[in-house]
Amino acid sequence: MDIDGGKRKRPLSDLRRLVEYGRNDKNDVLRRGAEQGGTVMGFDPALNRTWHLASRPRGDIRPENFAMQTSPRPEPGENQFRVRLLYISLDPGQRLWIREKASYLPSLPLGGPMFSFAMGVVEASRHADFPDGTIVTGVFGWQDYALSDGTGAVRSVVADPRLPLLARFGMLEHIGLTAYFGTLDLLQPKSGETMVVSGAAGAVGSIAVQIGKIMGCRVVGIAGSDEKCAWLRDELGADAVVNYRAGPLGEQLQLACPDGIDSFFDNVGGECLEAVLDLINMKARIAMCGAVSQYGADDKPYGPSNIYNLLMKRARMEGFIVLDYAADKRWWAIAEEQLVQWHLQGRLKYRLDIVDGLERTPVAMTRLFNGTNAGKLLVKVSDDPTN
Amino acid sequence: MDIDGGKRKRPLSDLRRLVEYGRNDKNDVLRRGAEQGGTVMGFDPALNRTWHLASRPRGDIRPENFAMQTSPRPEPGENQFRVRLLYISLDPGQRLWIREKASYLPSLPLGGPMFSFAMGVVEASRHADFPDGTIVTGVFGWQDYALSDGTGAVRSVVADPRLPLLARFGMLEHIGLTAYFGTLDLLQPKSGETMVVSGAAGAVGSIAVQIGKIMGCRVVGIAGSDEKCAWLRDELGADAVVNYRAGPLGEQLQLACPDGIDSFFDNVGGECLEAVLDLINMKARIAMCGAVSQYGADDKPYGPSNIYNLLMKRARMEGFIVLDYAADKRWWAIAEEQLVQWHLQGRLKYRLDIVDGLERTPVAMTRLFNGTNAGKLLVKVSDDPTN
Repeated sequence: MDIDGGKRKRPLSDLRRLVEYGRNDKNDVLRRGAEQGGTVMGFDPALNRTWHLASRPRGDIRPENFAMQTSPRPEPGENQFRVRLLYISLDPGQRLWIREKASYLPSLPLGGPMFSFAMGVVEASRHADFPDGTIVTGVFGWQDYALSDGTGAVRSVVADPRLPLLARFGMLEHIGLTAYFGTLDLLQPKSGETMVVSGAAGAVGSIAVQIGKIMGCRVVGIAGSDEKCAWLRDELGADAVVNYRAGPLGEQLQLACPDGIDSFFDNVGGECLEAVLDLINMKARIAMCGAVSQYGADDKPYGPSNIYNLLMKRARMEGFIVLDYAADKRWWAIAEEQLVQWHLQGRLKYRLDIVDGLERTPVAMTRLFNGTNAGKLLVKVSDDPTN
Repeated sequence: MDIDGGKRKRPLSDLRRLVEYGRNDKNDVLRRGAEQGGTVMGFDPALNRTWHLASRPRGDIRPENFAMQTSPRPEPGENQFRVRLLYISLDPGQRLWIREKASYLPSLPLGGPMFSFAMGVVEASRHADFPDGTIVTGVFGWQDYALSDGTGAVRSVVADPRLPLLARFGMLEHIGLTAYFGTLDLLQPKSGETMVVSGAAGAVGSIAVQIGKIMGCRVVGIAGSDEKCAWLRDELGADAVVNYRAGPLGEQLQLACPDGIDSFFDNVGGECLEAVLDLINMKARIAMCGAVSQYGADDKPYGPSNIYNLLMKRARMEGFIVLDYAADKRWWAIAEEQLVQWHLQGRLKYRLDIVDGLERTPVAMTRLFNGTNAGKLLVKVSDDPTN
């Protein structure tokens, strides 16, 4: 896979190399400010637009942290194929990829091409395993086109006749599987227990809420607006909801959890984690899926002062990344099929939040951090040929 | 068991009731200041001295937080026996029992009798299962004599001819078993990994260091003096040691752990935990055994700001209390025998730090928090009849 539009031919065999690759782009002239300068370009089949990291965000991520560069549409070499991007997935954890300090991935160098999990369609293939028209997912740049040799994270998607294509992003792939493994492997919820989910109206959180309900838990969702809370309660079946913007979180959570908290699926960290730690029951489990409240606090994140409640309550807190589960293909396939079944049974819903146009990707990204996103956030790059 | 010298006859069936019992002592007149007033009394077989909680410590624990009360030596009723205390175990976790807020036990009420895990000998028995001369362990007051009906945590000790009696405190009971379960059940160390122990020269820590070595780890001990560090390195076989008073902990630890940290047996919490979190490897395990640095910070303990490294490294942190393992008598017995075997093989050593005289108990207690204790801290109350 080549995320730089064909100018370089080195295949990238894994995520790590993908990130390091950006180092070679330092001397390129970045064409800045497609957004700021008012030049909002649409999709042009002859051009390859690519968003690069222009500056590291301090605190909140901002559109001007990214700059657009264009080059001609790339042509595949032997054993390569071109991917026309259809949808780019935007996820809170990506904030970590562009901070100075390494996270669960090495840090993207300044000037390097920004990337995402994404979906595309194969064109101009010179690779036997990926004929034209194949739908693929993988890690691609924020761009119109990518070249690939099929290595790395690229996978063909066999369309499931039971599901629309975008269900993959709404409830499978890194979204549904994160919720599945975080809940079933780490939280191991028991029927009748109280399970709390933070970032509950987000892509992963909303699936975790529903899995908690399926497992028989009393599920309490924490979200940031009355609209999100209403959706969690009325559509997804949350037993109680807390709008953290509506009043003191600790007090609201205590009211919502009269029997304490047995398990916590945490996407937020910080004060949210602290409020939960105050209420955990004996042998409680906390799955650290994300800490979106702290991603902007590079220098000094907020450390909960009551972390020692883990000791008092003999409780467990564990971080996880869904990529770690990908090696177990059998478990992964079982999990996917279970999610599909729950969906077909009407027990698992998802909501998509689609922004149209690659040129809007940086602006769309900020929505993950200012509370305006609900459900799975995607950028539509070009038209889906299966539609 | 009756910890109030026979004046009340209600049996106490468990720790929780033991703590609640103190509530009835509120109206008693506390005779304060055996230490401060200069009246240091020795053991008198006709009297029962008992230490009560006179005030809650703010920050560091102080001798004047306790006050002594005396009463006649108690006489057992039917199906009771009297326990003459021999040794009282002092452990850092007891600081939590006397804070305002409940910990892993309910808080001891002001004026209530302070208690400890302890060892004594049965006298004047009117209980068939506990004849005179039986050595018992259990939770008893800081006192000369206690009455018991054999319920609660009281257990007969069958002397092991392979070991001195005090080996129970040095490497078995709540000390050795805490180190055993914390290491083998929670940390699950693999040969060749780096295991760090904080409070490494303490009673539990020093056993954990040696178990780590037995398991084939590279063990790094953190302690608070050059003498303790030398003991860890030269006597217990630690591969590297860090004196946290000798310089910046993070820098020293980094030097001592060139390959990062795979598992951490934490007795200290706070900045020590933070320094370790900075260096954890993928899938690291942290056993929260104690947080002695934070026990005095009732209002606002120090929360490590880098707790999110658990997420980046997919690591696990878990609190535990050895009492939770007591229910599994088979596992407990296997663990005890394993510890004894390691000791007999010369691979597991312990060090006792014995303070003479019940009257010195509060002063001795402060040594757990000011760095002057090394090894298992005990107060000798009266003469061991088996010696």
